[in-house]
Amino acid sequence: MPARRTSTRVTLSDVARDAGVSITTVSLVLNRVASATISDQTRERVEASAQRLNYRRNAAARQLRTQRSDTIGFITDAVAANPNAGDVIRGAQDVAWRHGKVVMIVNTGANAALAERAAEQLMERQVEGLIYAADHHQEVWLPPVFGEVPCVLVDCFTGDLTYPSVVPDEVGGGRTATTQLLEAGHRRIGFINLEEGLPATAGRLAGYRQALAGAGIGFDTGLVRSATDEIGLPYRRTRELMLLDQPPTGIFCATDRMAMEAYAALADLGLRVPNDISVIGFDNQEIIATRLRPGLTTVQLPHYAMGAWASERLLEMVSGDSADPAQINLPCPLVRRDSIAAPVAPGIRTMAGHLVDSHRGR
Amino acid sequence: MPARRTSTRVTLSDVARDAGVSITTVSLVLNRVASATISDQTRERVEASAQRLNYRRNAAARQLRTQRSDTIGFITDAVAANPNAGDVIRGAQDVAWRHGKVVMIVNTGANAALAERAAEQLMERQVEGLIYAADHHQEVWLPPVFGEVPCVLVDCFTGDLTYPSVVPDEVGGGRTATTQLLEAGHRRIGFINLEEGLPATAGRLAGYRQALAGAGIGFDTGLVRSATDEIGLPYRRTRELMLLDQPPTGIFCATDRMAMEAYAALADLGLRVPNDISVIGFDNQEIIATRLRPGLTTVQLPHYAMGAWASERLLEMVSGDSADPAQINLPCPLVRRDSIAAPVAPGIRTMAGHLVDSHRGR
Repeated sequence: MPARRTSTRVTLSDVARDAGVSITTVSLVLNRVASATISDQTRERVEASAQRLNYRRNAAARQLRTQRSDTIGFITDAVAANPNAGDVIRGAQDVAWRHGKVVMIVNTGANAALAERAAEQLMERQVEGLIYAADHHQEVWLPPVFGEVPCVLVDCFTGDLTYPSVVPDEVGGGRTATTQLLEAGHRRIGFINLEEGLPATAGRLAGYRQALAGAGIGFDTGLVRSATDEIGLPYRRTRELMLLDQPPTGIFCATDRMAMEAYAALADLGLRVPNDISVIGFDNQEIIATRLRPGLTTVQLPHYAMGAWASERLLEMVSGDSADPAQINLPCPLVRRDSIAAPVAPGIRTMAGHLVDSHRGR
Repeated sequence: MPARRTSTRVTLSDVARDAGVSITTVSLVLNRVASATISDQTRERVEASAQRLNYRRNAAARQLRTQRSDTIGFITDAVAANPNAGDVIRGAQDVAWRHGKVVMIVNTGANAALAERAAEQLMERQVEGLIYAADHHQEVWLPPVFGEVPCVLVDCFTGDLTYPSVVPDEVGGGRTATTQLLEAGHRRIGFINLEEGLPATAGRLAGYRQALAGAGIGFDTGLVRSATDEIGLPYRRTRELMLLDQPPTGIFCATDRMAMEAYAALADLGLRVPNDISVIGFDNQEIIATRLRPGLTTVQLPHYAMGAWASERLLEMVSGDSADPAQINLPCPLVRRDSIAAPVAPGIRTMAGHLVDSHRGR
């Protein structure tokens, strides 16, 4: 059994005795008080003793003295819900660590009561600030306890915009996806969007429309379908689009999960991606996007960048900067893989059934 | 802007003044000291004042007094690497919260230096114990700092088995997967295993062999292939198996990601799951397993159960229980979906090409 620290805790006075100096000297050296005039020799002796005795600073004692915990709290339910959530945490943590702060993560539900309890517990541990990250872009309500320290929101916002927040540029992302298909030569572009009522849904639709308008293409409501995350629904929506009298030659799917179902629907219709039909996704969920055949070209949600931004902003606020409650939109970059090609000649694209037959002959 | 706590911190003496009682009385009431004889009336008055003033306990001060932080540390790199890692955290946290403990999560790399720094920082915050979770079942080396408090490992173990650890029952999982195919009537079962050298690889192969032996079927090395996580490799391995003179009628894939590629390879050969060929996966990565068509029958890695077990065990050790450094294997339960059916009659299964033609006629 390894030794337990609780029974063998090394104190400042143990180090002082070992180094043959006063407790004050040990404290000045180990807390790196720059103004103290202590010889290099003494400094080295104290540090050697501390190391030999395995002295560890007591954050609780230091915290009472300095009123700083060097800890920021991170509350999220995204860890459980979203495979990319780890990137938000990585981003927040990389920045915090560079500033000597530890991120204390509490994983909770979207349940406001749980989030409140988590915040209370972090407050008791005197976190210097809080990051709240939602599992997808949405409006949230936060209990007042979040207002007791500087607080930054990731992938969400409060209705009154009390807190600074960072969210994906959904409009720009929708424009990027649509533009990719336009640039490959597509003119009839289907769009399987998320359900109504989400910021992502409205934003990406606006981006889709902007890109079409920019290319001088009219908006055709028949080419836009909405789907929830329900298994099988994006499959059916893809089929519906392809069985139109004038089916699209490219499809923009609002999530990579939808694109995975679209691939299956297209294969079942005998259509090949990208030779017969191009597909672009959204999210860059690598577990899906890289393993689809062909690899899925998609638009990345900026999880890492949002986490890093939130941490930077929070640390500025902790240092006394004012809390400008602005909402920042971070760009969603294109991730190019192999699911987009030029459309096939319009002549042979009359209906899916015909296309299947013409392919059998290849 | 919400008020900042740092400048307006409410103290015990503020509450005492408001309630018209002594600081000691406030402390006894708010810390719920059972032995104190204080009237219900006074108790209620103090609690009302504390609530009105928004008094919050100071964990740092309490910690110095009680020597307890009520916090356990959780170090992992799995959050970034594994979409199911959230379940380990949820399991650990659900148990810890029931015991009034907060889990402080630090996300780190497999890099031992980072893990050491994370542990040091958690130690400074006087965590009562540590959980270290790896992103997949493996042997790890941990710096000595992990031995300073009770420590439990998840999905990994140290070579000297210093710490209690919990890992998946890989042998049982391999047996479960193979048995599913056997029970559906399959006799030639292909196995695309992970690369050599991992506990999962050896364990699942042993389980596969045990299940075959139990059914009186000889082991055919030609039916077992290994693949890394490299994109495209499981696709090629599936093709190789199906182009054997005597191809399998069912395939056991060591991950759901492999099964996703196997589906694509089988579709490209004109084979339908499960009518022409059965497939079973491993992991239960829902993002894949639920959206494949048909849904993938698979064997679940017990992430939540491992997290919960680790927290239970750790809290026992924190309460003074001895650290039996045993390694616990938790079962990997079957998750039934739609990718297994009875094999097609042996007569028509001569080679993949023939099968494709016979299907065209359906």
